[in-house]
Amino acid sequence: MRNILLKIAYRGTNYCGYQVQPNKITIAEVLQDAIEKVFGARYDIKGASRTDAGVHANNFAVTFKTEKNIPTQNIIRALNVHLPDDVAVKSAQEVDIDFHPRYDAVKKRYIYKIWNSVEKNPFFTDMALHIPQKLNVELMQKASKNFVGTYDFTAFCNTGCSVEDKVRTIYDCAVTRENNFVYVSIEGDGFLYNMVRIIVGTLLSVSMGKILPSEITDIIESKDRKRAGITVPAHGLYLDEVFYNNME
Amino acid sequence: MRNILLKIAYRGTNYCGYQVQPNKITIAEVLQDAIEKVFGARYDIKGASRTDAGVHANNFAVTFKTEKNIPTQNIIRALNVHLPDDVAVKSAQEVDIDFHPRYDAVKKRYIYKIWNSVEKNPFFTDMALHIPQKLNVELMQKASKNFVGTYDFTAFCNTGCSVEDKVRTIYDCAVTRENNFVYVSIEGDGFLYNMVRIIVGTLLSVSMGKILPSEITDIIESKDRKRAGITVPAHGLYLDEVFYNNME
Repeated sequence: MRNILLKIAYRGTNYCGYQVQPNKITIAEVLQDAIEKVFGARYDIKGASRTDAGVHANNFAVTFKTEKNIPTQNIIRALNVHLPDDVAVKSAQEVDIDFHPRYDAVKKRYIYKIWNSVEKNPFFTDMALHIPQKLNVELMQKASKNFVGTYDFTAFCNTGCSVEDKVRTIYDCAVTRENNFVYVSIEGDGFLYNMVRIIVGTLLSVSMGKILPSEITDIIESKDRKRAGITVPAHGLYLDEVFYNNME
Repeated sequence: MRNILLKIAYRGTNYCGYQVQPNKITIAEVLQDAIEKVFGARYDIKGASRTDAGVHANNFAVTFKTEKNIPTQNIIRALNVHLPDDVAVKSAQEVDIDFHPRYDAVKKRYIYKIWNSVEKNPFFTDMALHIPQKLNVELMQKASKNFVGTYDFTAFCNTGCSVEDKVRTIYDCAVTRENNFVYVSIEGDGFLYNMVRIIVGTLLSVSMGKILPSEITDIIESKDRKRAGITVPAHGLYLDEVFYNNME
């Protein structure tokens, strides 16, 4: 039996998120369909995360088990033929039979894209959040550093978040501007429900002067969701990379 | 009476082209709707061109006449509020009352975008043509120079092209690579139906070795559509700029 790890990219615009749901088109479903066409059987697939409707991925990790000896290069090619244009397999490799893309992940990086210009950008309507008011990137950078560390992130988790342990470690949180785009990049060992989108919403409050960079630690410690910023929309969010030990 | 010139950008993906058609959503229609909301009356609008379904624009030119004294900056803002996210007004200015965006255009530039990589790009499915085989950009550049000049472009016009005079002047035709994107940029005094898309299709034939760069002049002179390349799909095409004399 082989355990195959796929790295996939997708535009989430036309999907109800990653996870299979009845009567809804999801990334997992079209992936299972393509795998079935290539391997002749419907396999269970395991994903690294559950992205929400409209969220994109540059490198999502998925595994499935098979006894078929199709070379990994051919798996990539064949799956891409059977997948819709907005879902792409970027790589395939054989991994340890016990490898699990979610439980073995040691780090994930998310990127949030903001189109920051008075002008509308008709080409990024579903792929970046439009904010017309000029963002104060320096202030956002200052605040972003205060998210780095190991904390109970209850204040940055929406109700509906059922996990008990809300302690997570953020390794890096960076804000950069590239012309009219502003990117927030966050790396951590794991993320609570909507955590990245609330952190970005809080950084927007910082830019607007509603929250001071120095208040971030205080808000984290308060564990009070109401003190953090809004949950920004899904369509600016990209799962950029999932990291594993001793690989690649 | 004022004559207002708008420069607009749009993603053509969800529209049946520019020109108003019964029971179809077009760029002209949503623009007329927005103008009606802002000015309180349904005005005739004149466009610089008729782009096909799926074709995009970075700077399309449109005019309409009004007696209302709304300042141009306010026109931009108000129209953008009422337009869908994938249609944007970039500028507005008052022009001579007899100015016509189509007849007064002295030059137009189109850009054709190609995503040239074995990897699929899920984020550009509707905004660039995917060609997995590595394009020979040097060869395409060589061929592109042979389109420059004043010729009868009958060989580069699809049937259904009803104009009698098929003589057009191409001022510039350039092919450039930027990482995995290849861009074909064509400037001319006017274009026949599908002319840009057939020129690009012909350049692809050149890249594949089916047509030699030196054959281009011969194909133009033959006036034989069958000797040129395919009509590439609409979704890679952008009307990039419309040029007028004594303006901007």
